[in-house]
Amino acid sequence: MSPQDALRGLDGFTIEVPSWAYGNSGTRFKVFTTPGVPRDPFEKIADAAQVHALTGLAPRVSLHIPWDRVEDYQRLRVHAEEHGVRIGGINSNLFQDEDYKLGSLTHADPRVRDKAVAHHLDCVDVMRATGSTDLKLWLPDGTNYAGQDSLRARQDRLAESLERIYAALDPDHRLLLEYKFFEPYFYAMDIPDWGTALLHCQALGQRAQVVLDTGHHAPGTNIEFIVMQLLRAGRLGAFDLNSRFYADDDLIVGSADPFQLFRVMVEIVATDAHLPSSGVNFMLDQCHNIEDKVAGQIRSVLNVEQALAKALLLDAGALAAAQAAGDVIGAHDVLMDAFHTDVRGLLADRREARGLPRDPMAAYRASGYAARIAAERVGGTQAGWA
Amino acid sequence: MSPQDALRGLDGFTIEVPSWAYGNSGTRFKVFTTPGVPRDPFEKIADAAQVHALTGLAPRVSLHIPWDRVEDYQRLRVHAEEHGVRIGGINSNLFQDEDYKLGSLTHADPRVRDKAVAHHLDCVDVMRATGSTDLKLWLPDGTNYAGQDSLRARQDRLAESLERIYAALDPDHRLLLEYKFFEPYFYAMDIPDWGTALLHCQALGQRAQVVLDTGHHAPGTNIEFIVMQLLRAGRLGAFDLNSRFYADDDLIVGSADPFQLFRVMVEIVATDAHLPSSGVNFMLDQCHNIEDKVAGQIRSVLNVEQALAKALLLDAGALAAAQAAGDVIGAHDVLMDAFHTDVRGLLADRREARGLPRDPMAAYRASGYAARIAAERVGGTQAGWA
Amino acid sequence: MSPQDALRGLDGFTIEVPSWAYGNSGTRFKVFTTPGVPRDPFEKIADAAQVHALTGLAPRVSLHIPWDRVEDYQRLRVHAEEHGVRIGGINSNLFQDEDYKLGSLTHADPRVRDKAVAHHLDCVDVMRATGSTDLKLWLPDGTNYAGQDSLRARQDRLAESLERIYAALDPDHRLLLEYKFFEPYFYAMDIPDWGTALLHCQALGQRAQVVLDTGHHAPGTNIEFIVMQLLRAGRLGAFDLNSRFYADDDLIVGSADPFQLFRVMVEIVATDAHLPSSGVNFMLDQCHNIEDKVAGQIRSVLNVEQALAKALLLDAGALAAAQAAGDVIGAHDVLMDAFHTDVRGLLADRREARGLPRDPMAAYRASGYAARIAAERVGGTQAGWA
Amino acid sequence: MSPQDALRGLDGFTIEVPSWAYGNSGTRFKVFTTPGVPRDPFEKIADAAQVHALTGLAPRVSLHIPWDRVEDYQRLRVHAEEHGVRIGGINSNLFQDEDYKLGSLTHADPRVRDKAVAHHLDCVDVMRATGSTDLKLWLPDGTNYAGQDSLRARQDRLAESLERIYAALDPDHRLLLEYKFFEPYFYAMDIPDWGTALLHCQALGQRAQVVLDTGHHAPGTNIEFIVMQLLRAGRLGAFDLNSRFYADDDLIVGSADPFQLFRVMVEIVATDAHLPSSGVNFMLDQCHNIEDKVAGQIRSVLNVEQALAKALLLDAGALAAAQAAGDVIGAHDVLMDAFHTDVRGLLADRREARGLPRDPMAAYRASGYAARIAAERVGGTQAGWA
Repeated sequence: MSPQDALRGLDGFTIEVPSWAYGNSGTRFKVFTTPGVPRDPFEKIADAAQVHALTGLAPRVSLHIPWDRVEDYQRLRVHAEEHGVRIGGINSNLFQDEDYKLGSLTHADPRVRDKAVAHHLDCVDVMRATGSTDLKLWLPDGTNYAGQDSLRARQDRLAESLERIYAALDPDHRLLLEYKFFEPYFYAMDIPDWGTALLHCQALGQRAQVVLDTGHHAPGTNIEFIVMQLLRAGRLGAFDLNSRFYADDDLIVGSADPFQLFRVMVEIVATDAHLPSSGVNFMLDQCHNIEDKVAGQIRSVLNVEQALAKALLLDAGALAAAQAAGDVIGAHDVLMDAFHTDVRGLLADRREARGLPRDPMAAYRASGYAARIAAERVGGTQAGWA
Repeated sequence: MSPQDALRGLDGFTIEVPSWAYGNSGTRFKVFTTPGVPRDPFEKIADAAQVHALTGLAPRVSLHIPWDRVEDYQRLRVHAEEHGVRIGGINSNLFQDEDYKLGSLTHADPRVRDKAVAHHLDCVDVMRATGSTDLKLWLPDGTNYAGQDSLRARQDRLAESLERIYAALDPDHRLLLEYKFFEPYFYAMDIPDWGTALLHCQALGQRAQVVLDTGHHAPGTNIEFIVMQLLRAGRLGAFDLNSRFYADDDLIVGSADPFQLFRVMVEIVATDAHLPSSGVNFMLDQCHNIEDKVAGQIRSVLNVEQALAKALLLDAGALAAAQAAGDVIGAHDVLMDAFHTDVRGLLADRREARGLPRDPMAAYRASGYAARIAAERVGGTQAGWA
Repeated sequence: MSPQDALRGLDGFTIEVPSWAYGNSGTRFKVFTTPGVPRDPFEKIADAAQVHALTGLAPRVSLHIPWDRVEDYQRLRVHAEEHGVRIGGINSNLFQDEDYKLGSLTHADPRVRDKAVAHHLDCVDVMRATGSTDLKLWLPDGTNYAGQDSLRARQDRLAESLERIYAALDPDHRLLLEYKFFEPYFYAMDIPDWGTALLHCQALGQRAQVVLDTGHHAPGTNIEFIVMQLLRAGRLGAFDLNSRFYADDDLIVGSADPFQLFRVMVEIVATDAHLPSSGVNFMLDQCHNIEDKVAGQIRSVLNVEQALAKALLLDAGALAAAQAAGDVIGAHDVLMDAFHTDVRGLLADRREARGLPRDPMAAYRASGYAARIAAERVGGTQAGWA
Repeated sequence: MSPQDALRGLDGFTIEVPSWAYGNSGTRFKVFTTPGVPRDPFEKIADAAQVHALTGLAPRVSLHIPWDRVEDYQRLRVHAEEHGVRIGGINSNLFQDEDYKLGSLTHADPRVRDKAVAHHLDCVDVMRATGSTDLKLWLPDGTNYAGQDSLRARQDRLAESLERIYAALDPDHRLLLEYKFFEPYFYAMDIPDWGTALLHCQALGQRAQVVLDTGHHAPGTNIEFIVMQLLRAGRLGAFDLNSRFYADDDLIVGSADPFQLFRVMVEIVATDAHLPSSGVNFMLDQCHNIEDKVAGQIRSVLNVEQALAKALLLDAGALAAAQAAGDVIGAHDVLMDAFHTDVRGLLADRREARGLPRDPMAAYRASGYAARIAAERVGGTQAGWA
């Protein structure tokens, strides 16, 4: 198979970008600002549309409720379509209400749990209004001190809350359930690992699927193994792609360990999970704390494309033969051959053939977009996490 | 409830000690020797019996096949009973045959997988001969290099191999399946986490249960959360108790983080899993590389007893009340009160009342046992991992 | 030596509490509020004074500039003294100015470095006005992406900036330099470890000393080893005490791993570093994100006192004898004996004898202080990190 | 500068291979064997010479004493030269004598310390006999249990032992001191980090230099930062290169995180530390537990060469400009451009021009060397760690 043929595997592949990546973000120490940052969901979508226009890879934008709450979702939907993109998954927010200090779906007080469940029913309404089919739920609940609450009771409350949310979904809706090792709580998160997310999804039903955020694991965890395992169990619903060196650093995907990203994509390609039919939603979840946000998103989608392209170039036959022969170095070398291949020229050719700029980053820099939004978006309140 | 009443929860509680803890062990760098180390399974059981005689806590000894292979298991069984203990779980060994260089139950070559499955059938025979009901399987299989083998194919082979083993069990037998984060392979273990072990157990049936070795997790993993989760899923079959600071250090349980051991025991007590009826087998799995082995085992069972005693003293009512009130520090303080309580006197009283030495470590030192076995066990080959 | 005699080692021991612990704090996701939180440095000091009044352990309060900037430092100093405490170390802030997005003392632009240096000269003025002798400098600088800046050039700039700050100190002033593994930057911090802090202190002079924050290390790091090493090198200036399970969690000290806190105190006692003459400043640095802040501080100082008390009770003679004999378990057991001892009664007796409440937490709860400040402190802006 | 010009930086660059990489190795669970493994130091050197013959990169072989003890070192030296290589650093062994159970240079018993010091005097004799100038000392000493020994006393004993060894060196000899996070001890290693190694080197003198083994750090540690810092301090004596995912995995260098290896080489090139004049000795330290050992070494030296080549291609001017401009993504992109470049063709051309095979791995496979040594080396005892 020629490289060009192999790269046809990219044809249906898409990445979903998060609306919040275009707003301000930071650490607990400081949220730095940047000129031109969007003031509302419409401007976020305009920025996201730039990423798709230049790369052809990112036709959907995830919303986050309530950050992206608008009066008229139909108008937002049309706005997106006019900019060449559409609304993707709807993300609920369980971490910014004062009532959630000690938990939301797991809170000891049924009133707080009811409120958190009701928030998801609102999100389902947003899904209906925007045509979204994915309800993404990251549970930020947890405890900071041993004994603070019953670990077991919190699981039971969580199971009940999730059941109520799942019951409210339309038949074409999915519940995407995300796990996280730690933060914002530091003793025990209520969904700290993929095993816990899986158990809850199994209890709910087949349309409950696990979200794997590449930054939500203990140090040293083999991410591609979990990808493989969730695919094998038929429960990998989506990725939140980003990079990390230490914790949930939310850096540009592919910037910290490009080889890991490639290995993840190798597992994806091995079961054709890069094809739309797989149902796996490749989302980004990143914070561009100090860098240009649109450029950060462009770099991110290009990094994912590059990793997938290398995975598609992998000589699967040679790999299988070396594996069957027990040739340890030989099999590893087949994998590394694909990784070491410089696919940037091939991808530039492919973009050119599709009417896209050969170098999207250069095109973005040349476009003057950053300067334009900095000049135009004066006044108002920049969007951010708060 | 008086402390004495609370400690009645210890009455049926037992710990199972591993035969291999009495043999030599070490790191890849060196296995140091100690005078008096057993030369055969009979001597190992004699040593284990000392631990039980002095503590009253350890009436069972796990065997490891082939290390503890003997001509006449009936004789070994009687030998154990004559020493006041009995045979516990049977541990298979999948890591010391040259054929297993690239895997055993997951090996690409069906011949090797057949051999590994057949080894378990031998182990089942040992179970029948010794009256054991627990087949414990730690899978040391994995890969060292990305691409070396197909992660997915290895899971499929593993599932098939396990199915054959499970089918060979008697109705009163259990299959206890252990997971491990890393070592002896360094890219991907084939059962690296509890989620993977659980998926395989679910596929096998209800008598397949997960073993939680406290040293087999990524840095920072909340162990008591997994204990809670496996209990909630009805799949916690056994512990391999030990301590670690870094990796699978296999130190004396309770020596690295006594508070963690206590927290684990709090989760155990919360669902009465310390009672024999729970089916949870509290096994030790340790390596006394540089310390006296019998003393190391005595210290270990005393540490477990101490942690359980503190957990039993926990004021569950006060804890629940503080938790329900959202009193973060108050709830934590209730837990810490139990932990800070010095139970050593109470436990000494309890031992005395049961005809045991108040201070088993002092009794062991005074007994001259270590000197006696060092004098008697001359010649032969000391038992070890090889 | 009787326990009472051993505990005389507590007599001169003091802990310094941070003004910011009484304000709101949180994660990047949310800063939750609490009724009664101080609106200004005067109220923070009033809260801190409660901790000292009830425990007798915390006679100093660290300030953070600019958070604790006031018109009249003399008034603040008198205010503190009237409340029975005094001003301790002055902490500079290099993480909340928009200019510091890419660094402060290490920034590529000399204008920014000058500004950051000048901020320290302001802090030195505050030291003179408040009678403080410790300038504490945590450098939050770092980079998020490989290649973003020259690691080496940043060290050179840092050395030069520090030299200018050190030169501005009075002869009785110290520069306390803190290191941190990660956060708020995620590729490379400019002072990530004690080795780097030490090299800079060595270059500056003897009054430059290292600050060890117990939450600023890689997973698994042996903290007490670093304590020992810095004491041996004569460079341990201060602690920032807190607890962590994962990262820089800033939990109540002693809540995550009380045995580790004890081991640290054992190293302290081994060289009499708990005595005022040692120059080691035992500071707290914590965030009470979800719990009552004054109670959190009381619990913290009591936990430190308890750990130190246990370390003082350690039978140093028996320990040294067992160590010299190579008795691994025996030596460990001597240490554990001290740790397992319940010192709460002894400490309550000691408090009573000094005119303090036997149970400071109960006294605080009974005092109605929390309700009173919640009622009185209405309006204004609660203090926090921003 | 053309790529070909940039790659001239490779001209004087050499890698030192370890004799023990050609022998058997494994984990504490099993040392697997491979046909053809050397039986003595002469055969190890013959294998090492193959690596150099095919790659032109590895002209020196490190010895390990006593594993490589021979009657006549002059004969070994000539043997090496006849095979086109020469003897490199001499590694002492402090981990395989029964006397060292509780330590060697740090042991409480002066007799054991004397023995360990004397072993180094033997090593210095081997240096004189072989023309080696580097004495490499990895201290495997440490403790498994808190309290087992005095952390402080062990440092003092270590300092004294090192002083005696350093005093025995010839004026052209260096002492290379290695640190390690954990293993073979699991509570505290006596030289656990670069800070500790540096303090001891500072105490000894300028010819004491630190060895950085890339697998000897806590999870998440930024290795290239330490490289930079040791170079800045003038104390980077040597590398022990290898790969790790979890602990001291000793895998083929560049196999786990090729981007990290590249980043290390970027720091090296930034100060011309790849040139022989820098004094930095680029050693491998790996265990080919399951793969062909000679092939593993060839792959390793090629991976190092590839990483260095990419670092040499880095556009330093563009990088510095983007850094000075505070262009976060732009600077990172310059770095990534070098990393993504496929240098394999350039390196093959370069090899061809120097009379070496374009593809050393293919040449090795075609050579039949592995089959030949497997056929010839029958009988005797294969070399290994023991």
